Amino acid sequence: MEQETRLSESPSAVPGTVRPGGRTAKVRRAVLDATEDALAEAAFHTLNPDRIAAAAGVGKTTVYRRWGSPAGLVADLLRDMAEQSLPAADTGSLAGDLRANAELVLRTLTDPRMGAVFQAVIAAAACDEECARTLNGFYRTRLAEWAPVAARAAARGELPPDTDALELLRAVSAPLYYRFAVTREELTAADAERAVTAALAAAAAGAFAPRPAAGPGVD
Amino acid sequence: MEQETRLSESPSAVPGTVRPGGRTAKVRRAVLDATEDALAEAAFHTLNPDRIAAAAGVGKTTVYRRWGSPAGLVADLLRDMAEQSLPAADTGSLAGDLRANAELVLRTLTDPRMGAVFQAVIAAAACDEECARTLNGFYRTRLAEWAPVAARAAARGELPPDTDALELLRAVSAPLYYRFAVTREELTAADAERAVTAALAAAAAGAFAPRPAAGPGVD
Repeated sequence: MEQETRLSESPSAVPGTVRPGGRTAKVRRAVLDATEDALAEAAFHTLNPDRIAAAAGVGKTTVYRRWGSPAGLVADLLRDMAEQSLPAADTGSLAGDLRANAELVLRTLTDPRMGAVFQAVIAAAACDEECARTLNGFYRTRLAEWAPVAARAAARGELPPDTDALELLRAVSAPLYYRFAVTREELTAADAERAVTAALAAAAAGAFAPRPAAGPGVD
Repeated sequence: MEQETRLSESPSAVPGTVRPGGRTAKVRRAVLDATEDALAEAAFHTLNPDRIAAAAGVGKTTVYRRWGSPAGLVADLLRDMAEQSLPAADTGSLAGDLRANAELVLRTLTDPRMGAVFQAVIAAAACDEECARTLNGFYRTRLAEWAPVAARAAARGELPPDTDALELLRAVSAPLYYRFAVTREELTAADAERAVTAALAAAAAGAFAPRPAAGPGVD
């Protein structure tokens, strides 16, 4: 337990930033940063709570009591990632907004650090039910943040009014994640552009209405 | 090494089926079946070559010498799965063929045993480069098997002639795998139908031409 005081004594602690509730938040920040560092370096199954505690300057007891296991660390990292949102794009056109979304996904997945972290959390979700539920929650949060893009487009007459916003957004992300996490193919700007073009065409044809309409003359 | 003779002595060996090269093939079959059984029951990181050897009735030495590691077992299972192909559908229409493809993906991913195996191999690919390369090869094989569907549709005038067959097929699978492996959402027949409808609309709009065309009036 004496180790638990190490964080606030460490030279990296900024004086004056500890307020009521602040210590718990700082411990969490340090542990989740160390977890993300570890996942950026190596796969989920190598995640070691003892090493996370050491890297975070936090007592092992704290890490085991609060996070319990490697899966508990990944799940809380995902909850934290969901909380750190970027506002959705508002470029004035549906195509522009979806392109911004596709480019954000592309940048994240092709970034060496974040790409490794996403491979790791997807693997963790495949191994552990709590991670699967929190990964699901992470994407539900992200999709909900971007849903206004579809509502604004429908209001401008750019989308059939009964378009399911979440299906439209899933259609933009799916081809990129499919290459990244499943078929393990290279991911390029052309893939992001194709995902947007395909999603726009499908939306215009009514494919994302609550009950899918038939395709436009290719059936 | 004496354990390596156990397989051909076991009561499950069918007399008369051992031919030149047959014993190696039988050992491989027993080991890969045991690997698939293990992945259907538990996650990749719990895969234990000793237990695989015992379940397959094969000497540990053989398993370690030939497959080397859990990742080596998964990689060879993936090569074996790629070899066991089902012929692509030929229903007479592009919509029918793509629907058959989407239903095959849906059946596979929602099957309790095969769903668990696919979660495990996707996790293995996230942890190990050899598994990532063989998973990539598995999907390249599957996509190539189904590519004639697009060629036949183009010949019937159902597709723009410059449609990239593999992009069309990826567009059918991607939304299903995205829910299954990434967002961890439920996967239903409506998702398969929507994936087909969206892919057909995108193809008709030229989204899968080598250089994506602009969307149809929603840009």
